[in-house]
Amino acid sequence: MKIALDAMGTDDAPITEIAGAVVSVGLDPTLRVILVGDEAALTGPLSEFPAQEQIEVVHAPDRIDSSLAPVAALRRSPNSSIGVGLGLHAAGKADAFVSAGSTGAVMAASLRLLRPVRGVDRPPVGTMFPTHLGPTLVTDAGANIDCKPHNLAQFARVGSIYMQDLYGVSRPRVGLLNVGAEQIKGTEVLQDAYRLLAGSDLNFVGNIEGRDIVNHACDVLVCDGFTGNILLKFYESLAAFLVAHLRDRLMPGDLGAEFEEAFRVFDYAEYGGAPLLGVNGVSIICHGESSPKAISAAIGMAARTARSGIVDHIARDLAS
Amino acid sequence: MKIALDAMGTDDAPITEIAGAVVSVGLDPTLRVILVGDEAALTGPLSEFPAQEQIEVVHAPDRIDSSLAPVAALRRSPNSSIGVGLGLHAAGKADAFVSAGSTGAVMAASLRLLRPVRGVDRPPVGTMFPTHLGPTLVTDAGANIDCKPHNLAQFARVGSIYMQDLYGVSRPRVGLLNVGAEQIKGTEVLQDAYRLLAGSDLNFVGNIEGRDIVNHACDVLVCDGFTGNILLKFYESLAAFLVAHLRDRLMPGDLGAEFEEAFRVFDYAEYGGAPLLGVNGVSIICHGESSPKAISAAIGMAARTARSGIVDHIARDLAS
Repeated sequence: MKIALDAMGTDDAPITEIAGAVVSVGLDPTLRVILVGDEAALTGPLSEFPAQEQIEVVHAPDRIDSSLAPVAALRRSPNSSIGVGLGLHAAGKADAFVSAGSTGAVMAASLRLLRPVRGVDRPPVGTMFPTHLGPTLVTDAGANIDCKPHNLAQFARVGSIYMQDLYGVSRPRVGLLNVGAEQIKGTEVLQDAYRLLAGSDLNFVGNIEGRDIVNHACDVLVCDGFTGNILLKFYESLAAFLVAHLRDRLMPGDLGAEFEEAFRVFDYAEYGGAPLLGVNGVSIICHGESSPKAISAAIGMAARTARSGIVDHIARDLAS
Repeated sequence: MKIALDAMGTDDAPITEIAGAVVSVGLDPTLRVILVGDEAALTGPLSEFPAQEQIEVVHAPDRIDSSLAPVAALRRSPNSSIGVGLGLHAAGKADAFVSAGSTGAVMAASLRLLRPVRGVDRPPVGTMFPTHLGPTLVTDAGANIDCKPHNLAQFARVGSIYMQDLYGVSRPRVGLLNVGAEQIKGTEVLQDAYRLLAGSDLNFVGNIEGRDIVNHACDVLVCDGFTGNILLKFYESLAAFLVAHLRDRLMPGDLGAEFEEAFRVFDYAEYGGAPLLGVNGVSIICHGESSPKAISAAIGMAARTARSGIVDHIARDLAS
């Protein structure tokens, strides 16, 4: 199992990526990681870590210009770590790709180099929302701002397969994010999506309101990428903010560890990254602020995703 | 100052409303409250409270059928507490109206009986999002699911006047909820709204992402009623959930009071209710789960809103 890791993506690249890769190969002796990035910046720091025989470096000197639109930026920088890393995966030289770089560039390059699975018109990003009763996959968490009803129905389908294959949830409960429980609620797009989902063989449990998310009302929460992105970023900031707020107010000393533990369920680093679902490959998008722990979790997730055979499963399911 | 209070709205009506009214008139000897609802259900419980000389009862026997669409339900029940209460306000017999009943019915009846201010095509609901740095008004929090650019620009305008007149914020910072900071982000509607806001005399600070909300990045956060509703309900549930979660995990005993205090900033009861902005009158919508404290806060807010002259201010501003 070989994972191509964009070594230039995080805010503290490439040290964070190197450390994450080292942790991952230490946990799994069968794992290989390809660090993709500026060789000169990688080999020095890497030589100070153990387990280097499981890690190789592939040179990719170009930087993505984040002031350009993703497609233009990729064209301008053909040897970026994102382009080269996804190229390795597309050519079968790596089993998956992980990046904490520009989300837009990773998505655009994944669509171009891996191609959508037939039947998935607009591959969504799936992001785990932790709750104390278990995680909910939110699709789309940001890839597609404007969605048609059949896009939302496809998000539900690929999301269901993901929760089934990766989290062992049988007949995942699919909910449609909306402003009320009744079918007539929300926009016309949502009303039509409701009909499509209700008529499908998915385990559709109906509309889910904002207040139901945290109660784990469904395993797969379907929404457009605009709403998903707003919600995800709000959730992340709120959890972090509440921790800081309560720590200021309540925790002068030794309640720290217990407190950390109580908030473990909200820790994104536990989940590592967000897969782009419905492309012919495994492309995992991480936060720019990822820690080595989060990168390592994403590498582990990439390996599990590649081993699960979910890409074939999605292709078979969508073909039928 | 006379406030018409729908006495049949909360889950524990009319006791919650009666208690809220009693608390309010106790705090302000110049205040009068008109309890609007089923007289037979009101006079008995009311007689057990003090300060009744500041509280009167107006009979409104009809119940709103919540299985019907709001407009149909109102037509079916002409003597509902919502219709009668708003009628008192529209006729000048009350200075404001407060209800914890069906949000849809209160909005529909407010539009019909109070009428939108000229220049406000679709009056939004404004809801306070508490943060530790101060409150942010979210407009629209649920009245208008589909919005055009000029609707969003109008939400910004009425929201700015509200924060100025009711919270003393000079030149309120207006943000547009979006998935990225750049003007080209989001839907076409949002891109056009960005242009309208940037070209206006409002203090527009640009796009606000989900993660910025909790940092008090703006005083008025503009979004369509769909996104606002999802976000609001999510926020409410998350705050309540985190309190319960931490209490379970960390608080077996005497940290209770400190803990409550730390979470006071998130307490919706402090704010009481959400005004429908841009109608010719003061119409405040409360949660169905409101406590007497929340009802009392909403009555106080209604009185402050009526005294502020904001309705005239909005009408003057929009006319110019």
